[in-house]
Amino acid sequence: MASAMAFPLMDKGHEVNLVGTHLDRDIIDSIQKTGVHPNLDLELPDGVKAYQLEDAEEAFEGAEIAMSGVNSFGVRWAGEHFARLLRPGMMVIAVTKGLEADEEGNLSILPDVLASAVSEDLRGEVSWSAITGPAIAGEVAVRHETCVVFAGLDEEVLERLAGTFRTDYYHVWTSTDFVGCEVCAAVKNCYAFGGGFMDGLLDKEGKTEARYRRYNYGAALFGQATRELEQWMELLGGRAETPRGLPGVGDMFVTTMGGRNVKAGRYAGAGVPFSEVQNVKMKDVTLEGVAAIRVVGGALERMTRRGVLAAEDFPLMRHLYGVVARDEPLDMPWSAFFGGETVSGHVG
Amino acid sequence: MASAMAFPLMDKGHEVNLVGTHLDRDIIDSIQKTGVHPNLDLELPDGVKAYQLEDAEEAFEGAEIAMSGVNSFGVRWAGEHFARLLRPGMMVIAVTKGLEADEEGNLSILPDVLASAVSEDLRGEVSWSAITGPAIAGEVAVRHETCVVFAGLDEEVLERLAGTFRTDYYHVWTSTDFVGCEVCAAVKNCYAFGGGFMDGLLDKEGKTEARYRRYNYGAALFGQATRELEQWMELLGGRAETPRGLPGVGDMFVTTMGGRNVKAGRYAGAGVPFSEVQNVKMKDVTLEGVAAIRVVGGALERMTRRGVLAAEDFPLMRHLYGVVARDEPLDMPWSAFFGGETVSGHVG
Repeated sequence: MASAMAFPLMDKGHEVNLVGTHLDRDIIDSIQKTGVHPNLDLELPDGVKAYQLEDAEEAFEGAEIAMSGVNSFGVRWAGEHFARLLRPGMMVIAVTKGLEADEEGNLSILPDVLASAVSEDLRGEVSWSAITGPAIAGEVAVRHETCVVFAGLDEEVLERLAGTFRTDYYHVWTSTDFVGCEVCAAVKNCYAFGGGFMDGLLDKEGKTEARYRRYNYGAALFGQATRELEQWMELLGGRAETPRGLPGVGDMFVTTMGGRNVKAGRYAGAGVPFSEVQNVKMKDVTLEGVAAIRVVGGALERMTRRGVLAAEDFPLMRHLYGVVARDEPLDMPWSAFFGGETVSGHVG
Repeated sequence: MASAMAFPLMDKGHEVNLVGTHLDRDIIDSIQKTGVHPNLDLELPDGVKAYQLEDAEEAFEGAEIAMSGVNSFGVRWAGEHFARLLRPGMMVIAVTKGLEADEEGNLSILPDVLASAVSEDLRGEVSWSAITGPAIAGEVAVRHETCVVFAGLDEEVLERLAGTFRTDYYHVWTSTDFVGCEVCAAVKNCYAFGGGFMDGLLDKEGKTEARYRRYNYGAALFGQATRELEQWMELLGGRAETPRGLPGVGDMFVTTMGGRNVKAGRYAGAGVPFSEVQNVKMKDVTLEGVAAIRVVGGALERMTRRGVLAAEDFPLMRHLYGVVARDEPLDMPWSAFFGGETVSGHVG
């Protein structure tokens, strides 16, 4: 994602230096030698410079903005490097989607986790923001229209960042609902895993090519997921309107359209126990949605034990957690959705 | 759709009599001779009886529930037949999705249009309800899980109807937000037309099979459409929560996944002037979404002239109307979405 951002940024005439983690050595090599980003399978814009991790200081020299594009497992690691690389006045913007939970089930947004590795003094002299909303990296890189929301606490910083990135194909809105946008970004990945069930069920029934699909099923999940996104806002302090826009339903739509996470959900829908999906079918594949289900679903159970939540809250997320964390077979709790099927007056 | 409802109803042990319009003569013939519904390409459950229009009285004899499944162009016609066929105490339930506008741009929900053809006395002795939410007919007919909302003004009637139709694959919630559910049902069809633009644009650019799609584009439209659905509620008196559930985002999701309406949108996305789509490419095809865009978009312009709305309200619907009614080329007003891209403090 961070590499894809080089396209709008270079189109705006900015300088872009990419720094790889120790896991990105081959990617950086490839960009240095040929200009091609092998995962995107695209040549990056002329002038983008790529640096191995040991040359990060050089890459950060004179930089105004630092973007963090590691996956959710690397956020603490990235924070430790930021601790030595950031300088006062820099604007940090993160694209990683996920949440972290403590033993009580309290959830933290990842920009806070990223910042926590930085000394308190420096932390206060740097701004922290994030990119949320529906943006498949490769689509940005081929300049397909994309609408995103830059989220953070400082409206002025957000407007400066938005002005820096905005092009005629990369459209940027801003939101000071930092928690709400980040929670949506993480949690919609969980629900998008369920987007794979539609086709998985057809696979299981030998109906992979059948005329009648299971879109009604997926749509019902999408509706319940939207409801639960709103309940996450209530629980964690996000604004009610955030799930209804780009960071919520918009991003959940795009994430449901495909990718590794949906593929993992499809296996689960087809009846493969999830431990087998993770350890055999998709071994060594980073599954951000699944990781988020483990974090969020686990936190849900701890919050329920503490009496913060009722057992009937978040029935879809709880079932996703059962599938992922306990190898439970798919058994959608339909009647628990939308406040309960036979409870009068509840609206789906 | 009405024929597909025979599956859950017969599974519950009810009697089902289907009556065709004058346009359904061949369908009724086929069901009478072979039991097969040719459009669904499925054999209807044993015991379903099919009647030609002239035998409607016989079909209605002893019936407790009358379902109207005509398309939006046939609602007045159906109302006239209901005027002679309904008897006091019957429960009417409609599945037609659309709206009707008068010359001032005032919009009516179709169950009201249906009822308007029935004498005032009889109208008051019959209950009027509708089915909303994501339900592709064929998926119901093959018993794939489906979650819908029965909408009407009388909670008790809705619960009776829900109890009549509900099975372990056809899940029913109820809502007394009759206007909100019906407006969502109609308006989401308009926005789903825009769901075809993603692939149409790829077709136009010779990227039909390209790796990078235009899901970001579709997701941004989905987000803006959700925002506009909420504004429709404010304008027409629906409840704020209705678009967030099955009747809104749920149904919009399923409708965006395919069908004639999306196909028409794909042609428009590929650059075919819409008059050519309608008169050549998809001649004689009923396009409910397009019909709704004409009604709703036209009403929008009339309401704007009357000062009820500002010119910047509903930018997506206005553009869809321009494409459909005035052969305008696709030119998405991105910066007008989500309250305006460069207006501080607005959230996407």
